[in-house]
Amino acid sequence: MNEKLRYGIVGSGALGGYYGAKLARAGCDVHFLMRSDLDPVMRNGLAIRSKDGDFHLPHVNAHGSPEEMGPCDVVLIALKTTSNPALPRLIPPLLDGETALVTLQNGLGNEEMLAARFGARRVMGGLCFVCLNRTAPGVIEHFGHGTLSIGEFKGPPQDRTMRLVADFQRAGVDAKAVQSLITERWRKLVWNIPFNGLGIAAGANVAQVLSDAPLRDAARALMAEVIVAAGKLGYAIRPDFIDDQIERSGSMGEYHSSSQVDYEAGREVEVESIWGEPLRQARSAGAETPRLELLYALLQRLAGGGGPAN
Amino acid sequence: MNEKLRYGIVGSGALGGYYGAKLARAGCDVHFLMRSDLDPVMRNGLAIRSKDGDFHLPHVNAHGSPEEMGPCDVVLIALKTTSNPALPRLIPPLLDGETALVTLQNGLGNEEMLAARFGARRVMGGLCFVCLNRTAPGVIEHFGHGTLSIGEFKGPPQDRTMRLVADFQRAGVDAKAVQSLITERWRKLVWNIPFNGLGIAAGANVAQVLSDAPLRDAARALMAEVIVAAGKLGYAIRPDFIDDQIERSGSMGEYHSSSQVDYEAGREVEVESIWGEPLRQARSAGAETPRLELLYALLQRLAGGGGPAN
Repeated sequence: MNEKLRYGIVGSGALGGYYGAKLARAGCDVHFLMRSDLDPVMRNGLAIRSKDGDFHLPHVNAHGSPEEMGPCDVVLIALKTTSNPALPRLIPPLLDGETALVTLQNGLGNEEMLAARFGARRVMGGLCFVCLNRTAPGVIEHFGHGTLSIGEFKGPPQDRTMRLVADFQRAGVDAKAVQSLITERWRKLVWNIPFNGLGIAAGANVAQVLSDAPLRDAARALMAEVIVAAGKLGYAIRPDFIDDQIERSGSMGEYHSSSQVDYEAGREVEVESIWGEPLRQARSAGAETPRLELLYALLQRLAGGGGPAN
Repeated sequence: MNEKLRYGIVGSGALGGYYGAKLARAGCDVHFLMRSDLDPVMRNGLAIRSKDGDFHLPHVNAHGSPEEMGPCDVVLIALKTTSNPALPRLIPPLLDGETALVTLQNGLGNEEMLAARFGARRVMGGLCFVCLNRTAPGVIEHFGHGTLSIGEFKGPPQDRTMRLVADFQRAGVDAKAVQSLITERWRKLVWNIPFNGLGIAAGANVAQVLSDAPLRDAARALMAEVIVAAGKLGYAIRPDFIDDQIERSGSMGEYHSSSQVDYEAGREVEVESIWGEPLRQARSAGAETPRLELLYALLQRLAGGGGPAN
């Protein structure tokens, strides 16, 4: 890798725009691949409105095609997973010998898909805990949080992991390296599978799930299924993580998960990466996940966009 | 019981109106307890529009209160189960020493509730397989089917069971006596629990459930849970009943279950009698019903009208 990393952002919606803008503001060499927002951002730059302080980048490196963007040291992939079928076309022009592909996307299966296409050695991932909304072209609202957990697809952190963490930290992001990326993905799913899922299937926000005894019990039972499945796949999560997650959820109030927001707005929901792929992996490990199975059946009917995204 | 049975119909909507009108047309002594339809029916009588032949009863015995109606030999209870809390007030004036209480209602728990209040010896039940709609006060549309399976709450058919069956048969209803009423209720639930439930939770009619692989698998898995639960409670249903039910469902086309119709029309859904009470009984028998549990949690949130109906 070069001394100063060249970052490419694929998927410059709220997520890619936010983290890319933070890096760019800190002096990193950041290139945004844009489609509909290209012209407005070329004219007006990127604006972040945040409780941590607003900022505006009048000039950013925005590109209309991956060929124009060219090879990068690090590609941050922030597309919705429902757009994953576009990646085999978007990624190749961004690669040189050592390019790292870092998926910041939700759920499971994204690292595997990138590894199958581009080699496991390139693949890294990041888990974002952040509340964002793209309110207009080039304008991103940041409501809260913003931590980023970065890890290697295979194995513990490497030098490149730590370089990314350092860049993000310099950019003011609360970033850290994780020992087992996929364990962290499963840990996130312990929350997302019940709360995002019941948000859609029961039309219930976090507070409503918690205050409705059968739904709260269903959320706990789904969490237990996810933990057992993860364990069978070799990703150990302690059972008392359930109590921890239920308790933390109590402070979230009337929070609507991103999937529930997407569903209610009539946008595509990441059904395959959040429910479909975990279910398939659970089955492959022989885990019993009857509730996840039913929830997936409902969600792919209510909110699915067709077949598996990957 | 008297030589000519005096019938009282409690809940004179589509179901009670239809079977009561058939009996009255055949010369039975039938008395209808009515609320909102009382005046129109006093003026215009009851009209049945049916593919089996329309008929009109210009004068029926309609009553505005159970006190006015007085004791009956047979009370046919055709209220929606969501109105069960009204029964302790409606039934007592209709009782004499031998009055039989016959619940034609959906799901589980209705016989038990009547038995607890009025003594198990009085209680009978009937399973109706009929497509009806009350299109105006005193006007009932009959779309098809119409069989009636009548049984004792406890034990095999008695003389009174056969008398009711005979009256219904004389009235042109395809009626029969069943050896084990509650087994028949569970057999009906094997279909109602998945298809009525997924109709609401997935917004899918019968054909849509069958043509969507994950939903069809979910329906089969729910059926299996119901059969195991029934078995643990002592009501044996053979596992190949699932194939039978799936196959029969294939001929139903775009059928919307009554619960789905109620839900889509914004009316109360019989969540407790169709899902809540079977779930509670399954749990009491130590049966594992994780899918039913999740489905119930969703339905009581989406369509429930409060606590248990009984």
